[in-house]
Amino acid sequence: MSLLEPLFRWKAVEELFSDRARIQGMLDFEAALARAEARKGIFPKAVAATITSKCRAEFFEVDALANAAALAGNPAIPVVKQLTSLVGKADKEAAKFVHWGATSQDAIDTGFLLQQRDALKQVAAELGRLADALASLSKKHRATPAAGRTWLQQALPTTFGLRVAGWLDAINRHRLRLAHGQRQACVLQFGGAVGSLAALGAKGPAVAKALGEELNLEVPDIPWHSHRDRICEVATTLALMTGTLGKIARDISLLMQTEVAEVFEPAAEGRGGSSTLPQKRNPVTAAIVLAAATRVPALASSMLSAMVQEQERGVGGWHAEWEVMPEIIGLAAGALHYLTDTVAALEVDTERMLHNLEVTHGLIFAEAVQMALAGEIGLREAHELVEASTKVALKEKRSLREVLAGDKVVTKHLPSDRLDLIFNSKDYTGSASEMIDRVLAAHAATARRIESGKSE
Amino acid sequence: MSLLEPLFRWKAVEELFSDRARIQGMLDFEAALARAEARKGIFPKAVAATITSKCRAEFFEVDALANAAALAGNPAIPVVKQLTSLVGKADKEAAKFVHWGATSQDAIDTGFLLQQRDALKQVAAELGRLADALASLSKKHRATPAAGRTWLQQALPTTFGLRVAGWLDAINRHRLRLAHGQRQACVLQFGGAVGSLAALGAKGPAVAKALGEELNLEVPDIPWHSHRDRICEVATTLALMTGTLGKIARDISLLMQTEVAEVFEPAAEGRGGSSTLPQKRNPVTAAIVLAAATRVPALASSMLSAMVQEQERGVGGWHAEWEVMPEIIGLAAGALHYLTDTVAALEVDTERMLHNLEVTHGLIFAEAVQMALAGEIGLREAHELVEASTKVALKEKRSLREVLAGDKVVTKHLPSDRLDLIFNSKDYTGSASEMIDRVLAAHAATARRIESGKSE
Amino acid sequence: MSLLEPLFRWKAVEELFSDRARIQGMLDFEAALARAEARKGIFPKAVAATITSKCRAEFFEVDALANAAALAGNPAIPVVKQLTSLVGKADKEAAKFVHWGATSQDAIDTGFLLQQRDALKQVAAELGRLADALASLSKKHRATPAAGRTWLQQALPTTFGLRVAGWLDAINRHRLRLAHGQRQACVLQFGGAVGSLAALGAKGPAVAKALGEELNLEVPDIPWHSHRDRICEVATTLALMTGTLGKIARDISLLMQTEVAEVFEPAAEGRGGSSTLPQKRNPVTAAIVLAAATRVPALASSMLSAMVQEQERGVGGWHAEWEVMPEIIGLAAGALHYLTDTVAALEVDTERMLHNLEVTHGLIFAEAVQMALAGEIGLREAHELVEASTKVALKEKRSLREVLAGDKVVTKHLPSDRLDLIFNSKDYTGSASEMIDRVLAAHAATARRIESGKSE
Amino acid sequence: MSLLEPLFRWKAVEELFSDRARIQGMLDFEAALARAEARKGIFPKAVAATITSKCRAEFFEVDALANAAALAGNPAIPVVKQLTSLVGKADKEAAKFVHWGATSQDAIDTGFLLQQRDALKQVAAELGRLADALASLSKKHRATPAAGRTWLQQALPTTFGLRVAGWLDAINRHRLRLAHGQRQACVLQFGGAVGSLAALGAKGPAVAKALGEELNLEVPDIPWHSHRDRICEVATTLALMTGTLGKIARDISLLMQTEVAEVFEPAAEGRGGSSTLPQKRNPVTAAIVLAAATRVPALASSMLSAMVQEQERGVGGWHAEWEVMPEIIGLAAGALHYLTDTVAALEVDTERMLHNLEVTHGLIFAEAVQMALAGEIGLREAHELVEASTKVALKEKRSLREVLAGDKVVTKHLPSDRLDLIFNSKDYTGSASEMIDRVLAAHAATARRIESGKSE
Repeated sequence: MSLLEPLFRWKAVEELFSDRARIQGMLDFEAALARAEARKGIFPKAVAATITSKCRAEFFEVDALANAAALAGNPAIPVVKQLTSLVGKADKEAAKFVHWGATSQDAIDTGFLLQQRDALKQVAAELGRLADALASLSKKHRATPAAGRTWLQQALPTTFGLRVAGWLDAINRHRLRLAHGQRQACVLQFGGAVGSLAALGAKGPAVAKALGEELNLEVPDIPWHSHRDRICEVATTLALMTGTLGKIARDISLLMQTEVAEVFEPAAEGRGGSSTLPQKRNPVTAAIVLAAATRVPALASSMLSAMVQEQERGVGGWHAEWEVMPEIIGLAAGALHYLTDTVAALEVDTERMLHNLEVTHGLIFAEAVQMALAGEIGLREAHELVEASTKVALKEKRSLREVLAGDKVVTKHLPSDRLDLIFNSKDYTGSASEMIDRVLAAHAATARRIESGKSE
Repeated sequence: MSLLEPLFRWKAVEELFSDRARIQGMLDFEAALARAEARKGIFPKAVAATITSKCRAEFFEVDALANAAALAGNPAIPVVKQLTSLVGKADKEAAKFVHWGATSQDAIDTGFLLQQRDALKQVAAELGRLADALASLSKKHRATPAAGRTWLQQALPTTFGLRVAGWLDAINRHRLRLAHGQRQACVLQFGGAVGSLAALGAKGPAVAKALGEELNLEVPDIPWHSHRDRICEVATTLALMTGTLGKIARDISLLMQTEVAEVFEPAAEGRGGSSTLPQKRNPVTAAIVLAAATRVPALASSMLSAMVQEQERGVGGWHAEWEVMPEIIGLAAGALHYLTDTVAALEVDTERMLHNLEVTHGLIFAEAVQMALAGEIGLREAHELVEASTKVALKEKRSLREVLAGDKVVTKHLPSDRLDLIFNSKDYTGSASEMIDRVLAAHAATARRIESGKSE
Repeated sequence: MSLLEPLFRWKAVEELFSDRARIQGMLDFEAALARAEARKGIFPKAVAATITSKCRAEFFEVDALANAAALAGNPAIPVVKQLTSLVGKADKEAAKFVHWGATSQDAIDTGFLLQQRDALKQVAAELGRLADALASLSKKHRATPAAGRTWLQQALPTTFGLRVAGWLDAINRHRLRLAHGQRQACVLQFGGAVGSLAALGAKGPAVAKALGEELNLEVPDIPWHSHRDRICEVATTLALMTGTLGKIARDISLLMQTEVAEVFEPAAEGRGGSSTLPQKRNPVTAAIVLAAATRVPALASSMLSAMVQEQERGVGGWHAEWEVMPEIIGLAAGALHYLTDTVAALEVDTERMLHNLEVTHGLIFAEAVQMALAGEIGLREAHELVEASTKVALKEKRSLREVLAGDKVVTKHLPSDRLDLIFNSKDYTGSASEMIDRVLAAHAATARRIESGKSE
Repeated sequence: MSLLEPLFRWKAVEELFSDRARIQGMLDFEAALARAEARKGIFPKAVAATITSKCRAEFFEVDALANAAALAGNPAIPVVKQLTSLVGKADKEAAKFVHWGATSQDAIDTGFLLQQRDALKQVAAELGRLADALASLSKKHRATPAAGRTWLQQALPTTFGLRVAGWLDAINRHRLRLAHGQRQACVLQFGGAVGSLAALGAKGPAVAKALGEELNLEVPDIPWHSHRDRICEVATTLALMTGTLGKIARDISLLMQTEVAEVFEPAAEGRGGSSTLPQKRNPVTAAIVLAAATRVPALASSMLSAMVQEQERGVGGWHAEWEVMPEIIGLAAGALHYLTDTVAALEVDTERMLHNLEVTHGLIFAEAVQMALAGEIGLREAHELVEASTKVALKEKRSLREVLAGDKVVTKHLPSDRLDLIFNSKDYTGSASEMIDRVLAAHAATARRIESGKSE
């Protein structure tokens, strides 16, 4: 474990991208290839069994492979070489057939896909957990009044539940995107040197089909050595998700501000302290998630830039992916995991939310009074009248209600009791409740679609 | 028209993003809003008719709006103000109801969506045209022998048709992605100041539904003011597409190199010349497309970074989108349009392709001979034997066949006539033909799915 | 003027990047080239005079050039062609020598440099104006107590002047960077087709020297057609500056929050309003600057990606720069200009700053009391003791002073009057004043260095 | 060592960014702080000695720190806690003063700077080695004729030495930039919680000065906790350098193409092979460097985006830097190291360069003949005449000389022997030699400036 790993990453995903796991991915390809070729009669099944028996990462020495990979330009070449030796020690005949008809990129790409498949499964489950936590929170605070804020300014009353429903609505979409991405990404890479399966003669398609069955991967119409859109779409899908996670984290960090203090990341021994400030309770999760939301967009752009790969197999672009994709998955998964934990235990101070609705001395009801006047004198004129009154209120530090009560146009159309009503309208929240219902229904439907595998 | 516009952009799309079009988008929203609200009884239908009659961009002065937008912080505020004046001159009563219950962002976002919808329609059609051109090219050159190249080195023989099938396969996927993106993006923005439709009281949902019908846009469960994943997904979808366009352009530019000379962008009077080199025929389209493929990934990362928007409506992130999205669409559409024209008229020199298969004096058949030996002596040993022979061939500037003919292990297993066969195997192209068939079938199926609207 | 231009851009810089200005830049190159070549005896001075007389952008038709540029692949080819015609009408002999020995890229790159030189001059002056405004603000508020905030939480008292000094300190560095960048970027591009000045035979260096004199540009040791580090460094220099502008804007937007309300962007008629909220005073400048800070890093990464240009002159990378560089300069200059105006007239509410120091009921003095205890019982123990007390204070909604007064260890070491002193220590601001002095001195020194041209 | 590390990274730099090194960096800060404070009389020198004696990374357990850092939100908090325990076991009194007056960020930032200082020293030395290798290569091939290529097309003859001089010229600039960046980056971070050194009372400046002396770091006018331009400038400086490395690598990979074959990466046992193609000699270094040039621009944009840090110390932006900066340095250093090795041993096939000058049947001399005609008939007319002739030559597969010999205008002005001369002008290389001299002189001057420390 490295020093910053548990801070930024989620263990369940990180271990899927260890060196061992990367080596095992390539070996799983080689073993499955051997079995597929044996099934298609290219060599005896005993050969495949022997090869399979040696395809275990613990038989390989990472340091030696690493040094050889630096010379060769990729890690598959030394893996295949070492595997051939290992097999040869057990059975000289079997060693003849290791990696038969494949190219390095077949092993590296497919091996990575297997790691990625496991990782995306974890991410999908965690995203479901986040959605559930948000659904509970939204339901619970469906009617909790809170200040709505635009441009970082108080705007209108809203409910905390509506804000959370907005978060949930986006997360539901990411669940569907990810489900699509998971299918999209499970496509075998197998083409030999230039993607024609030349070395297998007429048996190429049959072997490919068998190999797809062995690994439970879809067999594409044509290999995709230098066409990286499928894998890049995993990157952009996760980047889109991380953008929403960042948005939620930004909101939480703003709501945690000393002067706002409406929600808090859950407290824990040793969590969010400071090395010098004893009173601090820092938004640690928000920091982690915002860091990911700062980093992942750029990493996604690296993947997109790297798509311009030359001819049958490129130089440089493909190599760029090897560290960038695990980084994207790792950062996105880490942000997701920590945010889920935080949302599931978020502390909400509903009293403070109510209190903050009072701090503007009625300015937050300006639109409500404007709309009440607008029916009489027109929207633009009402806007200008109320706007002028808010300026007086701010300048003279008086309440907006008081200022308006001194305006003849206002009093003509809005008697005092009507004004009272308006300036108490913490429930000036329009369709909030209906919207929450719709989002919660969509949440349930999304979960069902994903479970049934009919997410499209 | 600006100086660099016709170089980088496609007119059919560019004009959809003019200032006039942007203003008209917002006005289309305002007119539809008025009609929807009249339908729901908020005011008389005559009011809506008057408002609609003034919602024409040619009644508005761009410069005045631009200066006012700089003060206000967005272009919708002055548009609404000026529209209210215009309506007021015709009918004071109607002027009372302009922009009723909406916020600036409702007009700006929805207006942009309308522009984007038209643009994506053009892009989708052009992408279909590119796919068709590639399908013809692949079919025509299904059996045209050519050198396959990996790491910018000749690797194996392949067919030009297989290379083009790889291009087509990716483009087919982009067609499906775009069809999905087109639906995804057609979702009304309408929420009022904080997304609750508070100003419409209980009528919010009904008005929203009517507004969606007026504009033929889906009504979302909840407004998406500070949740930008839908629009960002359009950005990433186009960025993925541009990556593939860049890959094809890179390939064309490499094939056009003086020393390779296998394909050429179509010639035209004044096209691709040089200000000083009379013999030049520059890959102008490739340059344009590669420039787009350099720029769009970064622009997509801006969109992803900008997703971290604060609370109910953010400060800065939203503003960043206003120029970036049209830029992404414009660059992607321009690259697509010029590449489509180029592919449709690509000049292919099949003789030169044949010629280039000869330049390595047989090295390109190294894998073929290795596979022939491998069945006898094992893959790794065959690899090492042939590798050593290629080094001799290169060093002594002899043909690989000649060197191998002097090796006893080789001659033991491969008699002279067998070697002759191998070193003539321009058809050492494995499953190329079958792969092409599958890609062409997928092309036809994709077209049908898109036409039928069942692209998912 | 386009709709969003005055919102995001600064007119003084924007007009330097108009189409006319771009054409004039190329023409200035062609005119200077003619004069330089005449001075070196390649043709008579009258020829140069005639060519110079036609090098005026108003003689050229943008639309025709634009269409021809799209075919040719760059705008210099049609400019040279049209210039040759124009000159030919005046003097057939002179027309023979237009663009003698140059290549398109010489005209395009040098022309752009001339535009950029003027633009950077404006940016440098505005940056000086920002620095001066910050220096005044810092000096004025040198002793204004305010809450210092870390992780978006109140941490310790500080002074508003210290915060502004931090802003100024960074801006001073950007002034020096920009001064360096201005010199760095003023380097002639002139090399002919492959950078060897082949077409000028032995006269190349002499003509280059004369051309540099004509345009007041440094003559490099070798042309830089495919080496773009100098121009990219302008991009990164401006991106670094924009990062700091974004940081200042973020701070202003946070300080303007309804619940914080310590500073405000200056008010103006029609400024920062809302289309529906009459009470709003939005941070419009902050939005503009934050949008730029979201966009410029990605644009800079495009420039850096585009550096990988092929051989003597590249395909695609160079073309990517043509729109990206003006965009970077325009966005950075716009952000700078609006932020400068805002800082120069920033409204500061010192009373509210004082008030906000009270809202934590003493928690903000936690470090002060901890340090007072630390000398007695050690830093870690003091930290733990005060940390525990803050938790009690928060939970029981009591003041920290009150809680501490009930702790025996505290009262043993800190008598009541000592505690009083600590909980009044709005001047617990350490070296703030000395730091401000140093930054103000550096500000003066920076201005002198830049004026004297000795900024390095 | 991890699997891909030796492929992408340079060991000498990578080990400077190990977990141990990161911990040691923070401990070096704590030890120096203790000594500085003791020197200024805050506590006895024996205390500092005890603290210093425990500041050794090998006393700390990475896993425990990692888990605690995940809770705390940064690694300095557990380091300080564990250090306090360690010191306390030796001397209870000394333990009172660990981390006195500092904040976590002081330790993390300064600790990182110390790592970075060592790393940049290595990079600077390696960059010098690359420059020297390029200088030798340029000198050696000063007169080696080669085809100059623009837009990936043969353009004019040039010399291989001129191309290399272009590479060297850029690298010289990067040496100066890096020397500047090294100074720029060596600036102490020390400010306490909000940058005022409040906890040190009046002694802040004196302690800061002493601390700067202890660590040999410049003391800034004011702490830079949320102003990250200095560290970001290291990122952009390295990104600029990586851009040039990528450009050189792209050139090498293009020159290594089977059909061009002018230069080769040095051969070595096991280097650049393929898992299936025995004849391959892949441009492994080019791939590594191009991968870095694809990744580093995006990472630099993350650093620039992260500059927008809130108030006194930010949330998220700072955290993003922790992994991104080491990644930038590691990738840049790796690319530099492998490219240096490759350039130093580059195989150059001068015969093939000569051969490639012939492949166009004279087209490469088109500009030379055009310039010879231009003096007589004008540049534009000469251009059009030669352009037409090249089209005939290409179409009819004849040599350009032959076609021109049949044109009356040509033969009128250029007798046959003059044409012969032109079509043999492999020395049509203008000022190439003089340019090489200037670049070599600048190389020597740069080395002297850097050695003398007067690089600005």
